[in-house]
Amino acid sequence: MLTVKTPEDASATIRSIYQDKRTGIVRIETQSALGRILGADVIADEYVPGFDRSTVDGYAVIASDTFGCSASIPAVLELEGEILMGEAAHGSLKPLTCIAVSTGGDLPEGADAVVMVEHVEVYGDGLIGILRPVAPGNNIIFKGDDVSPGDLILKAGTVLDAYDIGLLSALGKTEVCVMHKPVVGIISTGDELVDSAQTPGRGQIRDVNTPMLMAAILKCGAQPRNYGIVRDEAQALSQAVTCAVTECDVVLISGGSSAGVRDMTAKIIQTHGTLIFHGIAMKPGKPTIFGSIHEIPVFGLPGHPVAAYFVTELFVRPLIAGLMGADVRRNTAFFAIGEAISANHGRAEYVAVRVGQAGVAVPLKGKSGLISSLAYSDGYICIPRDREGVSKGAMVEVIYW
Amino acid sequence: MLTVKTPEDASATIRSIYQDKRTGIVRIETQSALGRILGADVIADEYVPGFDRSTVDGYAVIASDTFGCSASIPAVLELEGEILMGEAAHGSLKPLTCIAVSTGGDLPEGADAVVMVEHVEVYGDGLIGILRPVAPGNNIIFKGDDVSPGDLILKAGTVLDAYDIGLLSALGKTEVCVMHKPVVGIISTGDELVDSAQTPGRGQIRDVNTPMLMAAILKCGAQPRNYGIVRDEAQALSQAVTCAVTECDVVLISGGSSAGVRDMTAKIIQTHGTLIFHGIAMKPGKPTIFGSIHEIPVFGLPGHPVAAYFVTELFVRPLIAGLMGADVRRNTAFFAIGEAISANHGRAEYVAVRVGQAGVAVPLKGKSGLISSLAYSDGYICIPRDREGVSKGAMVEVIYW
Repeated sequence: MLTVKTPEDASATIRSIYQDKRTGIVRIETQSALGRILGADVIADEYVPGFDRSTVDGYAVIASDTFGCSASIPAVLELEGEILMGEAAHGSLKPLTCIAVSTGGDLPEGADAVVMVEHVEVYGDGLIGILRPVAPGNNIIFKGDDVSPGDLILKAGTVLDAYDIGLLSALGKTEVCVMHKPVVGIISTGDELVDSAQTPGRGQIRDVNTPMLMAAILKCGAQPRNYGIVRDEAQALSQAVTCAVTECDVVLISGGSSAGVRDMTAKIIQTHGTLIFHGIAMKPGKPTIFGSIHEIPVFGLPGHPVAAYFVTELFVRPLIAGLMGADVRRNTAFFAIGEAISANHGRAEYVAVRVGQAGVAVPLKGKSGLISSLAYSDGYICIPRDREGVSKGAMVEVIYW
Repeated sequence: MLTVKTPEDASATIRSIYQDKRTGIVRIETQSALGRILGADVIADEYVPGFDRSTVDGYAVIASDTFGCSASIPAVLELEGEILMGEAAHGSLKPLTCIAVSTGGDLPEGADAVVMVEHVEVYGDGLIGILRPVAPGNNIIFKGDDVSPGDLILKAGTVLDAYDIGLLSALGKTEVCVMHKPVVGIISTGDELVDSAQTPGRGQIRDVNTPMLMAAILKCGAQPRNYGIVRDEAQALSQAVTCAVTECDVVLISGGSSAGVRDMTAKIIQTHGTLIFHGIAMKPGKPTIFGSIHEIPVFGLPGHPVAAYFVTELFVRPLIAGLMGADVRRNTAFFAIGEAISANHGRAEYVAVRVGQAGVAVPLKGKSGLISSLAYSDGYICIPRDREGVSKGAMVEVIYW
């Protein structure tokens, strides 16, 4: 009999076993990389911007030519033409001259500032009056201000967002190395289960976990693989599991509401691999099993959908992220709890909450089979196992889904 | 000359024009619906669970048979067999008898509570000793406790998460009506732009906005369509825009860093449709243009990637959500700001921030062209236009990306 682990111990155990394991790297087009996890650090090999650019519409000048000028005594400069967008500036700016430039335009040699168009007077005879002095560097973004060659611009493990794709594009990196998506096998067990397309008879229920976990795994950035519903029968389950561990990076055996199936799952893991823990001191989710077969992590998830979802969120998701060299970052915020919650001493209790209009977190407590409580929630709170509950109005940390 | 709008006015204007416009509805498989937006309310037509179920492994009893029992004086009941998972309970429970049942199992007529297996003694001769009394309803989840026919289970506009797919599956809803993804046309303008696969010459830069906005639109749940880079030339731009408005639900004209292009975009909108506003009192993002052509919303986004990204996040994303009948929900949290920020009076200033380890939000201020500042950020803060800035250590509300 293995001891029941606390949620912290369970997380630490999983992490310690799999911390160095990684899926491989694949090179894909940057434009298809949204949401993928970077497989290697990206180092810049160019300057961004690649040349000194104006940040305003105006006139490139030698700053010292404008010193001391004002609206009443403008500095008068000769207009030497215009730098068009997309064109290189030619030649060098001579003292007491200026060149018209648009936002983003190149600057001629010698120009060390740009006067905004709002701060000049155009005299119309090729002369420009500067009404406000500028200091060297004003209204210029210099070559390499954003990125220089050798800069680490994105770290391995970054989940690529739209602006990261922008940054890679700015550097001409049209391909990028990302982590392979781990393949996660999903096996549902239970003689009471029928496919969600079927009408269950009395004593039967539709298989909620398979479609829910398929979607949850997709959301984790991994590739779910459906092994269907397996009867509560040792040989059938053993066959499905041993097949799945050869085809997947992670295997989830969901279901086994009955004690018999739980024991069967544990026994199969023990027969073919190593049973690592059996039970987590949490609610919902206590009957969670974890082990490994041929170094593939295998979870026995509770049959209750809400419990299965919490265990997936808390333990499977970080493992999947870890296999891709990434971390799970959860956004949290503090709210007053809308009603008192009593909790079981000795077990960490996870409660789905809805964040109401008045900045109050309303607990959606229900029996753990009630999948609707999750559908109405924005996130969850955790009542630690050394607390007896929370009283109404207490501040709680809501972890957003 | 149209007046510059505040960000609030700009949002309200866009909303008021397009609040009743919707993309159509399409019926898809529930298992493919992750992240899609529900197109119609979903009403339950079944009970979940469909029968009274045990929530524990134990013995179904008539509660009154257990009243007054204890570990020292157990209530002795005759064991009438076992209800197997997936099977219907037959017959009715007679007084002073019990039936073994697993978690999730069906209950026989007459049984009104379940005694947990931990609270019985098995005498081995067909008799079971009950060591703790149970009240009617204990350890049972009743038919319809989660959902009953007629219940509104998911509202139109819901972004479908994994647990929603679970809930739909529990009800046998294997297909679901979702909103069509709006098609968003992306046009980049600027003579200085070259495709991100090319090496820019001096005065040229790579087109960052097209790949960035393609990804940002995908993240909004819409379908981006790339119209490529268009030269700063009225006829070419006009042609691209008039084509895009016939093929798209929203059109983004990105770029036009130079004053000439901005005017050109405004003029094209005015020629073919209605220019609604030209300029938003925000930083970055001031030169934003908004109008409609043949009732299709057309944005003129700033050329600077960071400005284009903020405008997309703040104005395009809510419009896209609205076209699908959904709202944008942004998660926020309060942090102390890591350093003072001075802001321009009169313009709302948006600053990307990184949330550091010590619960401090570090501003990533840069010139608005610096796309790397977004890549290192977790979210942003807004300094309202009636504030001159924030002092170091002040509490700020971080809006997560």
